[in-house]
Amino acid sequence: MNKLYVIGIGPGDEKYMTIDATQALAQAELICGYTVYVDLVKDKYPNIQTLTTPMTKEIDRCRMALEEVSKGKTVAMVCSGDAGVYGMSGLIYQLAVEYPPVEIIVVAGVTAALSGGSVLGAPLTHDFAVVSLSDLLTPWETIVKRLHAVGMGDFSVAIYNPCSKKRSDYLAKACDILLEHKDENTVCGWVKNIGRQGEESKLVSLKDLKNEELDMFCTVFVGNSQTMVIDGKMITPRGYEKKQ
Amino acid sequence: MNKLYVIGIGPGDEKYMTIDATQALAQAELICGYTVYVDLVKDKYPNIQTLTTPMTKEIDRCRMALEEVSKGKTVAMVCSGDAGVYGMSGLIYQLAVEYPPVEIIVVAGVTAALSGGSVLGAPLTHDFAVVSLSDLLTPWETIVKRLHAVGMGDFSVAIYNPCSKKRSDYLAKACDILLEHKDENTVCGWVKNIGRQGEESKLVSLKDLKNEELDMFCTVFVGNSQTMVIDGKMITPRGYEKKQ
Repeated sequence: MNKLYVIGIGPGDEKYMTIDATQALAQAELICGYTVYVDLVKDKYPNIQTLTTPMTKEIDRCRMALEEVSKGKTVAMVCSGDAGVYGMSGLIYQLAVEYPPVEIIVVAGVTAALSGGSVLGAPLTHDFAVVSLSDLLTPWETIVKRLHAVGMGDFSVAIYNPCSKKRSDYLAKACDILLEHKDENTVCGWVKNIGRQGEESKLVSLKDLKNEELDMFCTVFVGNSQTMVIDGKMITPRGYEKKQ
Repeated sequence: MNKLYVIGIGPGDEKYMTIDATQALAQAELICGYTVYVDLVKDKYPNIQTLTTPMTKEIDRCRMALEEVSKGKTVAMVCSGDAGVYGMSGLIYQLAVEYPPVEIIVVAGVTAALSGGSVLGAPLTHDFAVVSLSDLLTPWETIVKRLHAVGMGDFSVAIYNPCSKKRSDYLAKACDILLEHKDENTVCGWVKNIGRQGEESKLVSLKDLKNEELDMFCTVFVGNSQTMVIDGKMITPRGYEKKQ
């Protein structure tokens, strides 16, 4: 059966890929994906053909990959971070039923919650949630409901897609919801261009987070009630010290 | 300044490590960690000394690493999955303030939510939470509060440490809490020994999940209200199909 690898490449640089991901890419005859992500890997695999689609063309992108597999090619669909966290693996499975049988192999990768977390310190060492603020595919009411749940559960949270040009006030709205449950001094942080050129990060309180000028290349972290700053790093303790 | 790498090695096999993790390990003069995790990597680095502590000796383990760094060694502390998800990076930062200055470098890895998710399909493609059922370090009331929040927010959830010999009924208790919010037919699944010999997985409904015989090497996934089974895989849709 022809193989379709759906590969999480991590934040960008090849060194943040798993060995499994590099091996899967090396076996591919065609690399598909969003232009930006394909550009991140194609220099390392100059002999492999590429096919790209622009952002928001996810269904076209997955159909393109499935059609090429149907023609007999071994295809790698690349996703940033992990293939299963706001990535293409779910949609590939959903659409694959319309095509001749294909072997789908999902290769996990380091999602921004983990790579960005390692830049800030250890913000997600206890229970946490991952929430996207993009309402392109999700009703805003659902996002609001989840942010309230994050607050009620005293979860740390990694926020993906915190804002874009069209959604410049979404992060501020999210902060206001979290402030209904969390102290205004809750430790927060953000990382921009994780693992890429121009990487930047900053710690900030929840009350000040809404005033940060962020963009779609940022991942935002909001701590739980125990999160603290140690030597400039954002640390959510697991609780080992209490056991002593 | 002496370097202490805190490395997430992923689920076990070297191929699930990032290239960054392998490079950090290769630079180490000493590998520290829980015996089981050190055993997973030491064959690949036969010339590097190792120091291990048994499970639950996390503070001893981190102090041991920090003492060796203080003596001038480049040390790698290995953690399964990601170093920041129930791993040692937070505790290392907390304890490091008691030692001479050391450069701490956290190397992110593929946590079980991602590696296990890739085995089951794409269970976490939408917003999700990660919750541990271990009450060794966390009051059970906190765990209960978070499970209710998961239910109220209609989050998919990856459950770590679902049970152990001493906590054989914890998963059943968690299922009962989630059943207050989620339909009894909610798609769930579990993966045992992810990426290691003896890997097993199964899909099951939320109502039947509590009857599964699991152990501490399992990670459990509970879907959200949209999660479905497609061709034997657990898929949480992102919603692209609605946009068409």
